[in-house]
Amino acid sequence: MKRLEGGVCAVSGVRAAGVREGKYGLTIIAASGHAAGLFTTNKIRAAPLELTSKNLVASGGWLDGIIANSGCANAYTGPIGYEDAQTMARYLANFLGTDESKIAVASTGVIGRHMDMELIARLFDRAKIRLRYNHNASEEAAKAIMTTDTRVKEVAVEYNGVRVGGIVKGAGMIEPNLATMLCFLYTDAELTPSSLQDYLIEAARDSFNMLTVDGDTSTNDILLLTATGNKKCKDDDFCHALKYVCIELARMMAQDGEGATKYFETIVSGAKNEEDARVAAKAVARSNLVKTAIYGSDPNWGRIVAAVGRSGAEVDPQSISLILEGSGERIVLIDGGKVIEGMLDQAQKIMKGNKIMILVDLSLGNAEARSFGCDLTTKYVDINAKYTT
Amino acid sequence: MKRLEGGVCAVSGVRAAGVREGKYGLTIIAASGHAAGLFTTNKIRAAPLELTSKNLVASGGWLDGIIANSGCANAYTGPIGYEDAQTMARYLANFLGTDESKIAVASTGVIGRHMDMELIARLFDRAKIRLRYNHNASEEAAKAIMTTDTRVKEVAVEYNGVRVGGIVKGAGMIEPNLATMLCFLYTDAELTPSSLQDYLIEAARDSFNMLTVDGDTSTNDILLLTATGNKKCKDDDFCHALKYVCIELARMMAQDGEGATKYFETIVSGAKNEEDARVAAKAVARSNLVKTAIYGSDPNWGRIVAAVGRSGAEVDPQSISLILEGSGERIVLIDGGKVIEGMLDQAQKIMKGNKIMILVDLSLGNAEARSFGCDLTTKYVDINAKYTT
Repeated sequence: MKRLEGGVCAVSGVRAAGVREGKYGLTIIAASGHAAGLFTTNKIRAAPLELTSKNLVASGGWLDGIIANSGCANAYTGPIGYEDAQTMARYLANFLGTDESKIAVASTGVIGRHMDMELIARLFDRAKIRLRYNHNASEEAAKAIMTTDTRVKEVAVEYNGVRVGGIVKGAGMIEPNLATMLCFLYTDAELTPSSLQDYLIEAARDSFNMLTVDGDTSTNDILLLTATGNKKCKDDDFCHALKYVCIELARMMAQDGEGATKYFETIVSGAKNEEDARVAAKAVARSNLVKTAIYGSDPNWGRIVAAVGRSGAEVDPQSISLILEGSGERIVLIDGGKVIEGMLDQAQKIMKGNKIMILVDLSLGNAEARSFGCDLTTKYVDINAKYTT
Repeated sequence: MKRLEGGVCAVSGVRAAGVREGKYGLTIIAASGHAAGLFTTNKIRAAPLELTSKNLVASGGWLDGIIANSGCANAYTGPIGYEDAQTMARYLANFLGTDESKIAVASTGVIGRHMDMELIARLFDRAKIRLRYNHNASEEAAKAIMTTDTRVKEVAVEYNGVRVGGIVKGAGMIEPNLATMLCFLYTDAELTPSSLQDYLIEAARDSFNMLTVDGDTSTNDILLLTATGNKKCKDDDFCHALKYVCIELARMMAQDGEGATKYFETIVSGAKNEEDARVAAKAVARSNLVKTAIYGSDPNWGRIVAAVGRSGAEVDPQSISLILEGSGERIVLIDGGKVIEGMLDQAQKIMKGNKIMILVDLSLGNAEARSFGCDLTTKYVDINAKYTT
């Protein structure tokens, strides 16, 4: 897997631009191809998502461009919100000389407030003249959709000749399925349109759907994949590259979780089936008690076991093993149900690191899953206690 | 409903005592009668719960006493932990001149550490000579099982001649079903043994199972009800009193949630069915984003709607109504899907209070449920970041 610079613009033919005005931003991306999308599972779905999912049907799964804003979620805004999303699509469609149904719209920010369409028009006029192919354009696009994010999140790779590039935004209200995120992926792979959606679902399952920052699911989650389609490749190679990009972007989001100081992955192996592995790994990543223990470097491993126990997965207390890895150390805390005494000092050393691996073996089967999480800090509380004011 | 002083000791024939040594405590309660119990749903279940659930079967649902310690959960402690729980039961059984199988044992504290049985023996010797009927004894018993609790939690009532009294401990690792709690209930009602368990399940469903502090479920949750059985009464009267006591105790736990500065109740009405009402009400109580908004008095009501939307309940965004109550105010934020503009100042005033009612009407049916929650504060994070160290 070769890492490349340039995010979405590493894929040939993809133009991007982004502009900001204080806490409001606008991103546009232009590239044509078969496209697939995944949307929030929240039953309150923001207007731009309603529009985009309709557009993808109307266009037969084709996109010419994406327009996304930050600062206002355009969620719970009724018919006016829907019209505002249509207006955004129209701006970009007119500029690109295409049909509105071939444009995707996404928004992130405060829920229940109407869009400032004068601001959007102003931002669009600035953004459209910046639309370009170079690497900085992707970074600029990734920056313009940031809200509480502190870092630009973009990844691009080449694998056996096929390229996949993506940008993502998301730091809070993050929980499977999907995280609260806007994620735009591009590839030059030539793929059958019908397979795109399946591949995207598969890649999201092991990446964004295994990520949690705070257990909340946004009204605005959107994940779009456009295949510009001029590179022939094996489907397996493309899927491998796509999954790699999605997992890297999920890691970046966990590392940039609101207020987070530490990042941890939980791998649950030996589960009876895949669903059990997933729910157990997610229960650990989502536990406020595990998350605060990691924040405080408190080797309170009982909370990990308790989270697995309440996850719903089949668990036999007598067969669990628990290993911690990090800071160059690897220690066994529980071996086949037996607590190994005298490990707390070493456990604390690992907990003090900023990347911690939690390995839980249930020894009941062969299924495995990995979740991505971050610590819960006083800063998270501060950020979210004063979000709108 | 007449409130009484004296917690469990308001029920005649119930003796109690509690002693502490630093962060370790021991509580004993003596009273004989038919008994019912509910235990954690966590698949990692502490040794004392394994023992107590076996004892309740062996004794044909009869208890003569309860012994409970704080500071060590005796969870994930293997065969030694089970023997330690048996030793605790034996202490009290010998003292009361009864069989070990008629004693319940409960523990709360750090998971994965062995009991200090010398300490337990010492505490028991001090506690047994204090066992008595008076009201202070109940308070003392409630205090001895406190961990991060800051307030004594006991309630007693009389309703149409029947009395129900209870004490509870629990402030964190609290989530349906049950909360992390030790709860001991007594009644003088004369009831058929077979109905006791059903009535307990019913009362827990609308109280403890609708309570969440941090979304974690303990390995040690236990809820015991003993009916000393010398007062004839209507079953309905007893159930009414029992539910009242359980809801009051659940409220007390939410109000004393770890680090909590504010308390809120969420009533979801108009749900299609009871399950929908429950999951929607719990989703609001459990949302870290709602909880931090309440902490910061941020009238970010979009998070409430988003939590309902992702709860799994059937929701039609066009028919939701949202009302906030508190500090003597009542305001409508959403009326049948329409956002009422200009309410944010009043909403903030309500959010600044320390008791907030969130009323969500889904307008899809007739089912209703109420959840009990508290804010998520920087202090919660501090408490839990350094729990074992």
